[in-house]
Amino acid sequence: MSKTNAGHFFEDFSLGQVLRHATPRTITAGDVALYAAIFGSRFVVQSSEPFARQIGYRHSPVDDLLVFHLVFGKTVPDISLNAVANLGYAACRFLATVYLGDTLSAVSEIIGLKENSNRQTGVVYVRSQGFNQHGDLVLDFVRWVMVRKRDSAAAIAQEHVPTLPRALNPDSLGDACPAIYGAQYDPVLAGSPYKFADYAKGERIDHVDGTTIEEAEHQMATRLFQNTSRVHFNAFAEAKGRFGRRLIYGGHIMSLARKLSFNGLANAFHITAINGGRHVAPTFAGQTIFAWSEILDCAEIPGRDDVGALRLRTLAAADQPCQDFPSTIADQYDPAIVLDLDYWVLLPR
Amino acid sequence: MSKTNAGHFFEDFSLGQVLRHATPRTITAGDVALYAAIFGSRFVVQSSEPFARQIGYRHSPVDDLLVFHLVFGKTVPDISLNAVANLGYAACRFLATVYLGDTLSAVSEIIGLKENSNRQTGVVYVRSQGFNQHGDLVLDFVRWVMVRKRDSAAAIAQEHVPTLPRALNPDSLGDACPAIYGAQYDPVLAGSPYKFADYAKGERIDHVDGTTIEEAEHQMATRLFQNTSRVHFNAFAEAKGRFGRRLIYGGHIMSLARKLSFNGLANAFHITAINGGRHVAPTFAGQTIFAWSEILDCAEIPGRDDVGALRLRTLAAADQPCQDFPSTIADQYDPAIVLDLDYWVLLPR
Amino acid sequence: MSKTNAGHFFEDFSLGQVLRHATPRTITAGDVALYAAIFGSRFVVQSSEPFARQIGYRHSPVDDLLVFHLVFGKTVPDISLNAVANLGYAACRFLATVYLGDTLSAVSEIIGLKENSNRQTGVVYVRSQGFNQHGDLVLDFVRWVMVRKRDSAAAIAQEHVPTLPRALNPDSLGDACPAIYGAQYDPVLAGSPYKFADYAKGERIDHVDGTTIEEAEHQMATRLFQNTSRVHFNAFAEAKGRFGRRLIYGGHIMSLARKLSFNGLANAFHITAINGGRHVAPTFAGQTIFAWSEILDCAEIPGRDDVGALRLRTLAAADQPCQDFPSTIADQYDPAIVLDLDYWVLLPR
Repeated sequence: MSKTNAGHFFEDFSLGQVLRHATPRTITAGDVALYAAIFGSRFVVQSSEPFARQIGYRHSPVDDLLVFHLVFGKTVPDISLNAVANLGYAACRFLATVYLGDTLSAVSEIIGLKENSNRQTGVVYVRSQGFNQHGDLVLDFVRWVMVRKRDSAAAIAQEHVPTLPRALNPDSLGDACPAIYGAQYDPVLAGSPYKFADYAKGERIDHVDGTTIEEAEHQMATRLFQNTSRVHFNAFAEAKGRFGRRLIYGGHIMSLARKLSFNGLANAFHITAINGGRHVAPTFAGQTIFAWSEILDCAEIPGRDDVGALRLRTLAAADQPCQDFPSTIADQYDPAIVLDLDYWVLLPR
Repeated sequence: MSKTNAGHFFEDFSLGQVLRHATPRTITAGDVALYAAIFGSRFVVQSSEPFARQIGYRHSPVDDLLVFHLVFGKTVPDISLNAVANLGYAACRFLATVYLGDTLSAVSEIIGLKENSNRQTGVVYVRSQGFNQHGDLVLDFVRWVMVRKRDSAAAIAQEHVPTLPRALNPDSLGDACPAIYGAQYDPVLAGSPYKFADYAKGERIDHVDGTTIEEAEHQMATRLFQNTSRVHFNAFAEAKGRFGRRLIYGGHIMSLARKLSFNGLANAFHITAINGGRHVAPTFAGQTIFAWSEILDCAEIPGRDDVGALRLRTLAAADQPCQDFPSTIADQYDPAIVLDLDYWVLLPR
Repeated sequence: MSKTNAGHFFEDFSLGQVLRHATPRTITAGDVALYAAIFGSRFVVQSSEPFARQIGYRHSPVDDLLVFHLVFGKTVPDISLNAVANLGYAACRFLATVYLGDTLSAVSEIIGLKENSNRQTGVVYVRSQGFNQHGDLVLDFVRWVMVRKRDSAAAIAQEHVPTLPRALNPDSLGDACPAIYGAQYDPVLAGSPYKFADYAKGERIDHVDGTTIEEAEHQMATRLFQNTSRVHFNAFAEAKGRFGRRLIYGGHIMSLARKLSFNGLANAFHITAINGGRHVAPTFAGQTIFAWSEILDCAEIPGRDDVGALRLRTLAAADQPCQDFPSTIADQYDPAIVLDLDYWVLLPR
C-alpha cells in the first residue's frame, strides 16, 4: 500500500467527520518578514512593536491574513488536494490575537456535502478552526470546495447543504482586538488622518497602486504557508493543465488586495471577519493586481467605543487600474476582476 | 475628497517644512535574513553574533545599508512619490548602532527648493533623519530629488539651494561604531588579512564577481524597505513608461555594490558615512552588476586608535566586468556605469 | 598585489593542510523561515516548537540540510572557487543538534590529492567540520571536488587517495538526536501513521509531487548559505559558459528532494548521516524536480529503542515524474536523473 498522501476524494468525506490536520506551525519573525517582503504591507500595528504596545496590544500582532493562510494551508492536504476549485468562504472570524512565537494547529469538520449532477465531483463544506499552543481558538471559518470523485459510481451516504450567514453581525466582531487606547493612536505614524467616523456607507475608494506578481514570490509565499496544492508549484504538470501554467494561490490575491487597500484605508489596522469571498478568475505570474473598495456598512460594536467596524467589499483586478471601479456588468463580473472579498475591518474611533 | 495619498507635488513643499513620516518599523531577524538572502553580504560583524560581541558590539549590528533603506523608504510617500529622479545624496552619517528589535522612524525637513526653467518640475532638497525607539538619532542624510509640479503655473514662495559638503570630515565619523578591541578581531574569520594600514590612497580594487538581479529579488527587497515608489512594482504601468519595464530601486544597486566589495575590502565592516552618490543610469532585472573601488583617502579618526577610515569611490557597472576599472570617458561616464558612490568605511587598525 | 580572493588552485593545496574558513554565521528565525519558503519543508519537528519540545528536543531544531549548506558555504571560498565540479560526498555525520541562535563556523583539512592525467585539473579530497559557538562539532563530512590548476606544469608534492566508507554503520548514527519520547510523538500532527517498523528493505516510494525552480529562489537560497560559487549568480559570465546559463547549487536539489520525500516519509524527522551523493547532472531554473526513494536498509541503533534508522537512496529527476522509479539504464543513469543521494534518516519506533 502506498505510504504517500493521495488526498481525500469526494466520496471519502462524511457529514460530521472531524479531521485533525498535520504540521502545527510556530510563527517567527522570519515568517513575518517574508510576508512583509512578498506583500509589502504597511499597516503600522503590524510594523511597529512600540506602536502596537502603546495602543494596547501585548506585542505587534501577526498579520491577520498570515494567520488565515497558515491555518488554511494546514487544511489543504486533507481537504482540497483533489479540489477543482475553491468556491467560497463564509463566517470567518478572527478570535484571538496571534503573536510571534505562537504555534498554530488546525482541525476541520465536514458540515456539508452535495454531489454534482455529473457525478464526477461534489461540493464539500468545511468548517476549519485554528488554535494556538494554549488551545485558544484563534480563527474559525467555513469554506466550500469542489472536489473530484475517485469513482463516479461511488454512492454518497448523506448529503446536506448548510445554511451560512451572508455576513457576520457587528456584535460578533472584535474578539482578536484588545481595548485600544485611542489617545495613543498617532494617525501621522499610521499614515492617514481618516478614522472610523470619516468613512460613509456607499463610499468608493480606488487604491491606485498596482503590484506585479512574480513566480518566485507566490511560490515562496505559498510554501511559507505550507499549502501543498500542486497547481501552484509544478510547472511541468501545469503546462499540460487547464491553464498551461502555474496558478496563483487565491489567498495571495487577498493579501495583495489588503496591502493595496492601505492607500485609502491606512487605519483599518485589523481584519476582524471575512463575510464571504470569491476567487472570480484564476491569476498568473506576470499579472499586475489593482484593487478598489466600497464601504458596505459602518457599524459600531456593541459595548466598545474604542473601535468601529467597516464592512468592505474589495475587488481586485488583473492588469486593469481601478479608477473606474470595475465591478459587475449585466450580472457578470468585469473580465478583469479576479477577487471579490466581503469583510469587516476595525478602525480607531 | 480622496482618502488616498497622491503624494506631494513640487509646489506643495515649502522651505523649513517638517514632515513626520508614517510607519515606524521594528527590525527583526527576519529582515536581516532577507537582506542577507537578497544581497549576499558576508561581512562578519553582521553575520556572527559572537564575533560582533567579542570586538565590542553589544550584539551583531544591523547592516548599515539596511538601516539606510528602511529610513529612506519611510520618506518616499511624503517626498518622492511624484519624483522624476533621485538626483543625489550628501552628508549621510550613521550616528548610532542599530540592533535587532530596534524600531526606526523618520522625520524630514525641506532645506532647499529650486524650480526648473521648464516650470514642469523642481528640485527638492530634503534632510531626513532616522530615530530609534529611544529617540536617538541613528541616521542623518540629505538627498535631492526632481519632483513634478501638479500645476506648472503654480508659484513657488521661496527658493533656496543649500550648500552641502562634498565630503564629511574624519572628525565627524565613527559615531555608530563602538570601541573595537582589535586583539579580538580575527582576520581569518573576517575573510581577509588586509587592515586599515594595508590600503593606500589611489589604490584600485576590482571586486571581480558579478551578480544578476531578478525581478522577485528587487521587489521583495524594496517592499521589505516599505518603499512605495510605484516604478519598482507595477509592470503594467511601466510597460507604457519611459523604459518599458520596472526600474530597480537605486539603493538595491548600492547594496549589491557593497556586497561585491567584500572581495577586496572584507575588513571594511562598517559604512560610517556617505559623502555623495549618483544613480548614473537606471537598472533593470536581468542585468548583472559588477563593481570596483578606488581608495580616495585614508584617514585616522581624531581620538581613536582602534579603527581607521577609508574614503571609497565605488563604481557599479551593468553587464560589464570591471577589471579595466570603467569610469569616465571624456567627462562622460562609461555607458556601463550605473552607480557612483563616495563613502567612508571603517577598518580595524 | 591583489587584495581579492582568487581562490585556491589545485597546486595550492597540500596533504594535511588545515583551512579555517571565514564568516561564522549565527542562525536566526529569519534563516529558518527563508529555508521554509524556498524549499517548503513540512517535517513537524522543525515546524513546531511545542512538538519538538514534547518529544525531547530543547527547542525546534534547525533543519539538518540548512546546517549542511551553511557549513558547506563557508568552505567554498577556500576549497571550490576554482572547482570544475563537486564530485561526491562521504562520511557525513550530524553530531550535535543545532538551534536558533547558534553560530556555525567551519574548518577543513585536505585529506587527498590526485592530479588528473591531463594535468589541467586535479581532485581534492576535503574533510570539513562545522562547529557551534561552544566549539562542539555539529557536522563532519568529506567531499571531493575537481579543481583547476593555475599552471598545468606545476608539480604536486604528494598525492594520496583516501579510503572512504561506502556507508556509515548504524552504531555511528543518532548523535544529534536526543532521546525521543515516543508516547508524545503524535503521528497525526506529524502527517503520517508510518513509523520505523512500517518500512521494509527494498521498498520504493514515489514522492509524487514536483516543484519548479525559479532563478530568484535558488539565488536567494545560495546567498543565504553564503556560498560564493560564481556559477550560481552571474548570468552575464555564464551566458558564455559551459551551459549558457546559471547553474543551480547542487545542495538546492538535495533540499528539494528532502522536501518532496515528506510525502511518503513524513516521520523521517532527522537526517543523521549522508553516506554518499552524486550530482548526476546540472540543474537549471525552470526545471521541475521530482523524486523517489528506495529503502536500502532498516537498522536498529545499538543502545537506542526510541528511534530506528532507514538508509535511503533518493533519486531526483528533472522534468520527469517518478512513478516508474527512473534510475539506471544499462549502467547509465536515466537522463532525467540529477541527484543520487544515499543517506540515513531517523524515525520514531
